[in-house]
Amino acid sequence: MHRCLTVLLIVAFFESHLSVEAVNAPPGQTLGQPWPMPQSYQSYPDLLLLNSATFNLSPVGHSCDILQDAIRRYRLIIFGPSNALKFRPKSNVNVLANLDVNLMNECEKYPSLEMKENYTLTVTSSTANLASPTIWGILRGLETFSQLVYRGNYGEFLLNATKIVDFPRFSHRGVLLDTSRHYLSKEVIKENIEAMAYNKMNVFHWHIVDDQSFPYQSRKYPKLSDEGAYNRFTHIYTQNDVAEIIEFARVRGIRVIPEYDTPGHSQSWGKGQKGLLTECYSQGKPNGNFGPINPIVNTTYTFLEGFFSEVQQVFPDKYTHMGGDEVSFDCWKSNPDITKFMQQHGFPGNYSRLEQYYEQRLLNIMAKLNAGYIIWQEVVDNGVKVRPDTVVHVWKGGWQQDIAKVTALGHRALLSTCWYLDYISYGTDWTSYYNCEPLNWQGSAAQKKLVMGGEAALWGEFVDTSNVVSRLWPRASAVAEKLWSSSAMSDATSATPRFKEHRCRMVGRGIRAEPQNGPGYCVKEFN
Amino acid sequence: MHRCLTVLLIVAFFESHLSVEAVNAPPGQTLGQPWPMPQSYQSYPDLLLLNSATFNLSPVGHSCDILQDAIRRYRLIIFGPSNALKFRPKSNVNVLANLDVNLMNECEKYPSLEMKENYTLTVTSSTANLASPTIWGILRGLETFSQLVYRGNYGEFLLNATKIVDFPRFSHRGVLLDTSRHYLSKEVIKENIEAMAYNKMNVFHWHIVDDQSFPYQSRKYPKLSDEGAYNRFTHIYTQNDVAEIIEFARVRGIRVIPEYDTPGHSQSWGKGQKGLLTECYSQGKPNGNFGPINPIVNTTYTFLEGFFSEVQQVFPDKYTHMGGDEVSFDCWKSNPDITKFMQQHGFPGNYSRLEQYYEQRLLNIMAKLNAGYIIWQEVVDNGVKVRPDTVVHVWKGGWQQDIAKVTALGHRALLSTCWYLDYISYGTDWTSYYNCEPLNWQGSAAQKKLVMGGEAALWGEFVDTSNVVSRLWPRASAVAEKLWSSSAMSDATSATPRFKEHRCRMVGRGIRAEPQNGPGYCVKEFN
Repeated sequence: MHRCLTVLLIVAFFESHLSVEAVNAPPGQTLGQPWPMPQSYQSYPDLLLLNSATFNLSPVGHSCDILQDAIRRYRLIIFGPSNALKFRPKSNVNVLANLDVNLMNECEKYPSLEMKENYTLTVTSSTANLASPTIWGILRGLETFSQLVYRGNYGEFLLNATKIVDFPRFSHRGVLLDTSRHYLSKEVIKENIEAMAYNKMNVFHWHIVDDQSFPYQSRKYPKLSDEGAYNRFTHIYTQNDVAEIIEFARVRGIRVIPEYDTPGHSQSWGKGQKGLLTECYSQGKPNGNFGPINPIVNTTYTFLEGFFSEVQQVFPDKYTHMGGDEVSFDCWKSNPDITKFMQQHGFPGNYSRLEQYYEQRLLNIMAKLNAGYIIWQEVVDNGVKVRPDTVVHVWKGGWQQDIAKVTALGHRALLSTCWYLDYISYGTDWTSYYNCEPLNWQGSAAQKKLVMGGEAALWGEFVDTSNVVSRLWPRASAVAEKLWSSSAMSDATSATPRFKEHRCRMVGRGIRAEPQNGPGYCVKEFN
Repeated sequence: MHRCLTVLLIVAFFESHLSVEAVNAPPGQTLGQPWPMPQSYQSYPDLLLLNSATFNLSPVGHSCDILQDAIRRYRLIIFGPSNALKFRPKSNVNVLANLDVNLMNECEKYPSLEMKENYTLTVTSSTANLASPTIWGILRGLETFSQLVYRGNYGEFLLNATKIVDFPRFSHRGVLLDTSRHYLSKEVIKENIEAMAYNKMNVFHWHIVDDQSFPYQSRKYPKLSDEGAYNRFTHIYTQNDVAEIIEFARVRGIRVIPEYDTPGHSQSWGKGQKGLLTECYSQGKPNGNFGPINPIVNTTYTFLEGFFSEVQQVFPDKYTHMGGDEVSFDCWKSNPDITKFMQQHGFPGNYSRLEQYYEQRLLNIMAKLNAGYIIWQEVVDNGVKVRPDTVVHVWKGGWQQDIAKVTALGHRALLSTCWYLDYISYGTDWTSYYNCEPLNWQGSAAQKKLVMGGEAALWGEFVDTSNVVSRLWPRASAVAEKLWSSSAMSDATSATPRFKEHRCRMVGRGIRAEPQNGPGYCVKEFN
């Protein structure tokens, strides 16, 4: 539909401006249409030409480091590293000479859950206008503007007159990467953050440690990575690495939320922090194995408070993901000290209560640190009473019932169940992610307002630096549009030509996005 | 098993040579063990040290351009681009000072189906010896030697004393890449050829054109790619490109066999060669669609003879893959001229006979050009009588029956059915390729001798330059060992530690091989 429209418009335009040739996209691809689709998007017949040497992209309102960096970056994205191309238009071609960037308020320093990302973009005369009350809206609008521009048959930069009013449907639009099952290089993490910006995603959920390895190098507890990383020198993230990644994300309006999953998924913690994990018993004796974090000793909480106060300093985002999934009770059950503790505290045999005891003490520590927190759904599923401001991350099958339950309890919620991108199969699968509507379940309007968004989760069992980018993109783009665009954007078939253009756009920008739609090509292939 | 052995040997060694520390491989990985496993492989306790600055890798027998290039290349592979590391061994450490490369005969210029690849490699004293009657055996032996070397804790280069007698089980060990569904860059094709050399694979089956696009730029018929390529300038292989790829493969002992699939799978041919394809009819009139190549007009054969005589000049290998799969008879059935032709030739309604008519004329042309040819199994399945020297490529389900049938007819055979690497699923899948035994079917010894080998097939619907390397490797390595090593190498579980080492070895050499075995790490990750 969109494509036919574009073609029609170009034909109409040609009757009056004969000096620019019609441009053919590869079959089945749109030309200059944005992904994710803005909330309101009108494209007009008038074709405008950009002169890469003189095009003026500049602030007319407030400015700051983020905006300056974005303007430099988007000039490169739009025109490429070389500005040498000088296309001399015939006099009757309309030239877009300026994009006035009107940031209406001072910059916020860090993106946050509460940030506003709305913007308006008007490209109708020789001066286009991008306006937003926030730097975050300006970033989203620059991305949209860059996507409207396409190349003509002579390499010239073209775009159609366009009016856009845009804002995200959900405020939390994330990608989960897992650096514990396999290590990911700092460079490839940044490449993924860049791709997230091209998709208006705004949360990098960094599942930084897990059973398999502990690559986070703590200032206070360096033994955690010394003993728990795959390699203490090469397979770690130093404080500088973390800061560099956070800064890279910040200037793109992307939050970095680390996950330190406890009390399960913590085998690697135990190597550098002796006494932290529960000793498992067989026949009345410790058997050398360890279970979840030991919830009954005060040293645990002293350590956790020390550790998470560092985390709060290192990661500027208010939120930390506290994990809490898949806690096995077997080891706790085997340990006589734990049995005794539970008897003394009046809940013998009730291991959910023990989990609750742990979670409440942990979340109280976080509250004391003035931290927000996200937990996996099991904590609530297991009947653990958590603080009402807890955000619950739904990932299990039957998510419609689960998210209804979580929001009925008054918790805010995130959805990942239908967006587990580590599960692969032959052929096109982005359409199944696209067909997952996060509010398609039985619940009140008030409940649905509690859904903050969701995340595409790429667990790390079978990806590392070698294949993480091509595994994630463009499949996560389907999730990006679900979380940004109107719920009316629900037909994968009509979205396909635009999806293909967007995949090729990412490839053209150097992102190793895989071909998801069967045979075909991009004008500019990955190189 | 192998790993335990290695550890034991190092311990034994330490008692007498205390100056080299024991080296730990990442958990579950071997250290310095080759993939594919040689036919005879003995590793000894004695540890030898290589001095990268003085190690002498040089010919003591015949030499030629291929050998000189290989020696330069393998020095780089073994020691890396920098030779600066100077490890001063204590005096009681044995140093391997030389690898004498004894090529016993003059070089053949091109690898061929008949080439011998056997070699012996002895590393027991200060001078190691690699010997082979052929340059191809020398190349395989250099690859093995390079795989024996690993890094010590101080970055020093170590290997165990080793004796190897080796030769391939099958003579045709291929990888099929498809450059029609998606274009692949010349660079990524070369990267795959390099990875093939690391796996002792010796045939690049280049499925170069198909329905979707015709990227081969013909000298005689440039319109084929002008009209049939995705883009006539950017999505083609020039004669120079093809020559560069063939040369890159040649010096690695790898044959390049192009596939020009006809009479089906040829839609893209019709764009530049008018009149070549059959016109399809509806209600007695041409409907604008085209079917397989038109077998009833002489212009078809004039063109094919002209085209394939060029192909024979461009590709030095004796063999060309002629395709012949999935020929739909619908369009032929609709065409009244074809109906008439079949009546006139005495086989009305017998479309297999028409296919046979085409194939026989085509293969006669190839015979006249002194070309060998491979065809997909359907040609034979359809009862088409082909020349007895035809090689039949089995790819369909029920391959055990099919390959028995093909070889019972006296044809040589290739297997791909169980190695369709385009089909992906979640998790570890190389083990299923490893478990496919190509001779596990009912047939005589004479029949089994007709199995020349097989190919890992990575069809191009969902891969292009962005993801082809990580999709193919290390999964194709499983096929490589099946086709090179003894049939006794059939237990994927015991092969896993060596497979992991080999995957990391490829990653260390810059090949974007994906993590196939779940969580873990390489000492040197992809970067």
